[in-house]
Amino acid sequence: MTKTGEFERIKRILAPLAVGSAGAFDLTDDAAVFPTEPDRDLVVTTDTMVAGVHFIGTEPPQLIARKLLRVNLSDLAAMGARPQCYTLNIALPSTTEDEWLEQFAEGLEADQGRFGITLAGGDSVSTPGPVTLTVTAIGSVPRGQALRRSGARIGDRILVSGTIGDAAFGLLALTGALPPLPDAARDRLIERYRLPQPRVALGERLTGIAHAAIDVSDGLVADLRHIAETSACGAVLRAAAVPRSEDVRALLQSTPSLQETGLAGGDDYELLFTVAADRVPAMAELAGQLSLPLTEVGEIVDGASVRVLDAAGRELKIGSGGWVHR
Amino acid sequence: MTKTGEFERIKRILAPLAVGSAGAFDLTDDAAVFPTEPDRDLVVTTDTMVAGVHFIGTEPPQLIARKLLRVNLSDLAAMGARPQCYTLNIALPSTTEDEWLEQFAEGLEADQGRFGITLAGGDSVSTPGPVTLTVTAIGSVPRGQALRRSGARIGDRILVSGTIGDAAFGLLALTGALPPLPDAARDRLIERYRLPQPRVALGERLTGIAHAAIDVSDGLVADLRHIAETSACGAVLRAAAVPRSEDVRALLQSTPSLQETGLAGGDDYELLFTVAADRVPAMAELAGQLSLPLTEVGEIVDGASVRVLDAAGRELKIGSGGWVHR
Repeated sequence: MTKTGEFERIKRILAPLAVGSAGAFDLTDDAAVFPTEPDRDLVVTTDTMVAGVHFIGTEPPQLIARKLLRVNLSDLAAMGARPQCYTLNIALPSTTEDEWLEQFAEGLEADQGRFGITLAGGDSVSTPGPVTLTVTAIGSVPRGQALRRSGARIGDRILVSGTIGDAAFGLLALTGALPPLPDAARDRLIERYRLPQPRVALGERLTGIAHAAIDVSDGLVADLRHIAETSACGAVLRAAAVPRSEDVRALLQSTPSLQETGLAGGDDYELLFTVAADRVPAMAELAGQLSLPLTEVGEIVDGASVRVLDAAGRELKIGSGGWVHR
Repeated sequence: MTKTGEFERIKRILAPLAVGSAGAFDLTDDAAVFPTEPDRDLVVTTDTMVAGVHFIGTEPPQLIARKLLRVNLSDLAAMGARPQCYTLNIALPSTTEDEWLEQFAEGLEADQGRFGITLAGGDSVSTPGPVTLTVTAIGSVPRGQALRRSGARIGDRILVSGTIGDAAFGLLALTGALPPLPDAARDRLIERYRLPQPRVALGERLTGIAHAAIDVSDGLVADLRHIAETSACGAVLRAAAVPRSEDVRALLQSTPSLQETGLAGGDDYELLFTVAADRVPAMAELAGQLSLPLTEVGEIVDGASVRVLDAAGRELKIGSGGWVHR
């Protein structure tokens, strides 16, 4: 059981993460400095995760780190931004072992390499409460081209990347609330819940094309409602068109009562976006280039409501929609 | 006792703080977007404060908010940066009343006006632990001109703004560890502890002039050591030259054992910086323009140690120096 002073701990364990981040000055200065690029806007997003609220606390620290980083990268992706760097604030109980922090740093390091970002600075403090983690991620977009929730236009087609529902079923599997299913399927679903795949490359490619975009974190229906409300229009979602993995398809067939979770469950971190109808063919081409399914699931309409239709065109009731963190 | 849903709470109480921050989109998007200025570098700093660790928790929420914002602005000042905007992450126990959050927002609003910054975004979560607050502040400096800790050169004069020790004695007064002193003096010292005055205007004026700078948060001696270590040189500090308020001067005269706290105590948030000897006269002029004392307290020397000398030139022992947060 080794616990070192806060300052030494930061320096030893986190400083290697700042290597390559020219303005981070090996985390020895009061702030990080970095050059801005001409003709690009800056995009900033931040998320906090609390042990016992946003994660259980017994997960491998590497996974906690990667999820924290990735939910922020997903927000950047939803704005069409290219990630640049991030800051990290960690409040740790005094009982936290150096080993935990080292494994946490390993997770950050792995994803830094994968997404081409570095640690620019941060703060490390002690807390009498649970582990509390904040990442603030900074990226950039071509000037004036940031994707927003509010740009959807009547007649736009609504598309979503990847498959939907896997993460929500992964969470149910973790809490023992799913019917029995094969181990391999269970593992895949849990992995989707634990380790989102932020659609950074897709987000960048959608600037100048998509009229509105959001990442699916609250749930497909709730996030579509965010687009509709901020864009002052309505939307129709065709439930049968929502892209499903083999695992989710099997679950929905065997247990139809899971349909609501399949539409309203959160944490997918796919991109939900709208494009003009004549852009849909270009989306098929983009899907091929990115090896990522982009599926048309509905359209933006006049009005103020989000209506969900079944395969026969009948309206489904989804309750309040969306998945709210405890 | 009114407690509203998280989303509504954020929108209602914090959204007004984002007015005027063009890229914050009334906090309805996934991230904030703002234009960068040509020929300026971006400066980012972040600090976390935990109730029971960095503040008691019973302070007026307005004061907690302002201190949090100001310690970040002080870090920007130490880099010579002009503040632009900030993000806010708040983890609150479910018992927190809306009133607390409203008063917290009042404090932010007051200082936003004073320092010309706006809220660009953030995250609000619940926690089973203590109130945990993170501010990430963003500013800018002329390209390549950011002040750093590491630029001090042998022969540089060391200067400090304002007066030193007030905040540390304010903390002692709060905890009942000071000898009896007049109420007015006690109030002034406590105010210095509770509400730092970040030296933003000074920081901006020092770009292109100061060789090294830091804000005095750990304590005068500890922070001078940070400059010396990162600059790979030594320093001499003349204890008798350290600028004192009337209140601190009276305390040090009546109770000489307080001398160590007067040199090593933290939380002053003044700027400690070095300039070439021939720049000292210009500093006197700048002090006049800013109505802020700038006092020469020592010099940068060859070597690797920070030596503190008394009025007779004898070396004082300061122990480990610096004030470490619990």
